[in-house]
Amino acid sequence: MLEKIDLSKKLNKSEYKTISTELEYKLGELQRKVRELKIPVIVVFEGWDAAGKGTLINQLMLAIDPRGFTVYPIKAPNEEERYRPFLWRFWTKIPETGRLAIFDRSWYGRVLVERVDKIVSKELWSQAYEDINAFERQLADDGTVIVKFYLHITKQEQKKRFEKLLKNKCTSWKVTEEDWRHHKQYQQYARAVEEMLDKTDTNLAPWTIIEAHDRRFAIVKMYKTLIAAIERRIAEVQKSEYKYEKITAKVEVIDSHVSILNQIDLSHSLSREKYEKELKKYQKRIRDLEHEVYVKRIPVIIVYQGWDAAGKGGNIKRLLQGMDPRGYEVVPVGAPNDIELNHHYLWRFWIKIPKAGHFTIFDRSWYGRVLVERIEGFCTETEWRRAYREIKEMEAHLANYGTVIIKFWLHIDSEEQLRRFKSREVTPHKQWKIGEEDWRNRKKWDQYQVAVDEMLFRTNTSYAPWTIIEANDKLYARIKAIKTVVQAVENRL
Amino acid sequence: MLEKIDLSKKLNKSEYKTISTELEYKLGELQRKVRELKIPVIVVFEGWDAAGKGTLINQLMLAIDPRGFTVYPIKAPNEEERYRPFLWRFWTKIPETGRLAIFDRSWYGRVLVERVDKIVSKELWSQAYEDINAFERQLADDGTVIVKFYLHITKQEQKKRFEKLLKNKCTSWKVTEEDWRHHKQYQQYARAVEEMLDKTDTNLAPWTIIEAHDRRFAIVKMYKTLIAAIERRIAEVQKSEYKYEKITAKVEVIDSHVSILNQIDLSHSLSREKYEKELKKYQKRIRDLEHEVYVKRIPVIIVYQGWDAAGKGGNIKRLLQGMDPRGYEVVPVGAPNDIELNHHYLWRFWIKIPKAGHFTIFDRSWYGRVLVERIEGFCTETEWRRAYREIKEMEAHLANYGTVIIKFWLHIDSEEQLRRFKSREVTPHKQWKIGEEDWRNRKKWDQYQVAVDEMLFRTNTSYAPWTIIEANDKLYARIKAIKTVVQAVENRL
Repeated sequence: MLEKIDLSKKLNKSEYKTISTELEYKLGELQRKVRELKIPVIVVFEGWDAAGKGTLINQLMLAIDPRGFTVYPIKAPNEEERYRPFLWRFWTKIPETGRLAIFDRSWYGRVLVERVDKIVSKELWSQAYEDINAFERQLADDGTVIVKFYLHITKQEQKKRFEKLLKNKCTSWKVTEEDWRHHKQYQQYARAVEEMLDKTDTNLAPWTIIEAHDRRFAIVKMYKTLIAAIERRIAEVQKSEYKYEKITAKVEVIDSHVSILNQIDLSHSLSREKYEKELKKYQKRIRDLEHEVYVKRIPVIIVYQGWDAAGKGGNIKRLLQGMDPRGYEVVPVGAPNDIELNHHYLWRFWIKIPKAGHFTIFDRSWYGRVLVERIEGFCTETEWRRAYREIKEMEAHLANYGTVIIKFWLHIDSEEQLRRFKSREVTPHKQWKIGEEDWRNRKKWDQYQVAVDEMLFRTNTSYAPWTIIEANDKLYARIKAIKTVVQAVENRL
Repeated sequence: MLEKIDLSKKLNKSEYKTISTELEYKLGELQRKVRELKIPVIVVFEGWDAAGKGTLINQLMLAIDPRGFTVYPIKAPNEEERYRPFLWRFWTKIPETGRLAIFDRSWYGRVLVERVDKIVSKELWSQAYEDINAFERQLADDGTVIVKFYLHITKQEQKKRFEKLLKNKCTSWKVTEEDWRHHKQYQQYARAVEEMLDKTDTNLAPWTIIEAHDRRFAIVKMYKTLIAAIERRIAEVQKSEYKYEKITAKVEVIDSHVSILNQIDLSHSLSREKYEKELKKYQKRIRDLEHEVYVKRIPVIIVYQGWDAAGKGGNIKRLLQGMDPRGYEVVPVGAPNDIELNHHYLWRFWIKIPKAGHFTIFDRSWYGRVLVERIEGFCTETEWRRAYREIKEMEAHLANYGTVIIKFWLHIDSEEQLRRFKSREVTPHKQWKIGEEDWRNRKKWDQYQVAVDEMLFRTNTSYAPWTIIEANDKLYARIKAIKTVVQAVENRL
């Protein structure tokens, strides 16, 4: 691809002045439109060292309203970032709706510098293509415009530019030994770039190669590409307005496959005496495991889902009682706030995943997408159907990094829920736990059961399996949960 | 203070069970009240190594609703943190209204471990007392409940606990050489602790020493202290409801001191030719300075304030045109969003201050507190009067860290503003820049002039001086601004 590029393209000053001013006005106008229509935009700048990424980005920044974008210079990952899967630091930076996120280098570092400099193994960087494509597809499916630039210059041109930087004492420090080493490896790099362009040039997130010998030509090409991409999306949005419809619930209660939930034996129970003994044993064990996990830098994710009043809170409390608070975090998940609503639905979970060596307990989770959001029509059918794959991709990415993923469904039957709701209503320090909404949800038990069954069926994987906790008996449920965690962590160790 | 503590206090198991359950219910109830009344709460845990901070924090976490708090374990600062003034990493963690922030160690590290281990100079840790008291006062004035615990055990008890940890292979790694060194320095530490308690025990943020030999006694004392502090604030809020009144504007236009603005000579101007030449010169210079500043790790803050249509945007654009986007960030400041409104008003600026070696340009700033918020009655008179001191404290803290602070007031006269408003209305690509609100603000010119004069008068300091930019002539204004930046940075270098 790179060889076919004509690098002699040029634009003279007066031509440039006329064209660029027009394009800048156009871009400003589109930016206001993007905000109004709540479209998120990602712009990626990759390219050879000294190809002029900084100049182009600066030009773009000055052309648009600073209230509407953020620039992210991407360097080698810092400690916080190294202790998380590689896409984490990019997920945390995806734009809110209506904003641009501009990346000065990006997730492609993994298949470029990290590959060529052998910072990661072949296994890791090969895997990255798939992860990157999934990442971009998920964002594009959610309505994000993704524009990716590769700034191309020849080896000779690069050398010339390095030498120029070296002549000025204020800029000479910018040309490092590493830059020269990369310069010498130009051919190796070129092969990596070719492969990257080949494997990640998708219809949802295509690459644009910018001939970067002539600054003016490069700027104009950048403007035009960006404008075209944004205009395309605006046209789509205006035509369909697919993002803003509110769908009414539509969950048909038919058993297309045999219900998993109906096969659960809820008669398990445990005596208080046995419970106390087991609890003590496992709490001690998990505290020790917490330390081992920290030393070995293993991240652990525990997801709690279950019926209202299934006992999630009490269960989590027993799990954590003996643990060191520096080693875990509980993330309670409710309705998304404004900021969260203005991002991809997985964003609020990505920003909360554990640092290697720590536990994160999600009290409800991303599975809300295929449960409450599905039932209540907070997302479209296309969206929740897509979510099964998206969730599995996220969990696979976490698991590939070495994360232990444990997912609980706390199961009780409808009669038991009724008993607990009533008991809450008459117990003074529990009254705040029960309200209208719980009763409303209860009426939709059958719809939820269909959704839960489908979720258990579709998202049960070897790397992130579901464990159903029979929770009619709270004591039994607590021991089963903590025991499951202990075993899963021991298996990993 | 520590010597007078009676460490023999104990609580037996059955007493504890009764009392603690009651207190936990009470705490849960208060937490819901805190959320309802939008009270932010900070709980600080300091104390000897192995005094049981983790146990106490875990106990507290399990007693309250996980949706309502965040725990921050504080360790040695990482790179991001070291490259910012020391309070930055705490300002970024202050709680939203209605939430608890629980600190496992805190800003007191500076006057404890950093002092005793000689990580910072005496000058720095001595200065910290003042910074800490200002920090806590600002938050308390804003309605934050601050509860600070110091967990006290004797040297002998500490030794016993270390030895117990060493016996278990899962916990033995927790007792480090550093811990033993600190143990040997117990007396030195004790002196530092005494001084800290003495200098930072204020009525707004008092210390509570917890006798930590007996775990049960410690837990109950923690609960009771926290409950009392929260109840006190709830009573205050319910009595006054001082946070929620909306005040109408009250800016009397009387010249109590001679108006600074009226003395500005707005006749300065610059020819296009001279402008082009100077601009080129200073843009080149600032690009070089940007590199020097990066190498020497100096943070630079540039604040732009000025009348509507004074030309802030165009001025900023010329300043940045030649710069490397990796070296600066522009922070446009508008009305605060929901999350920002739920924090201390300085929070949204604190989270944006530059990393050492970088420029941050604030397009409007914290001075909104004493301008628009004052005029429009978005804060109370007490609040904006308090702000002058708070702002100076913040700027002093930044300056002490080595930050270059440059503050511009872009000044035009009322006739010039009118001319520009009218011109915006008839220029197609500028129409979006002018609206109802601008015309409304214009009617309040005299009130704003009083507020601006008072701001310039009260917040002009040697470490963060104001520069008034005569901006009737845009070309003159741009050169004066960029020249001022160049000189300020050169002076520092």
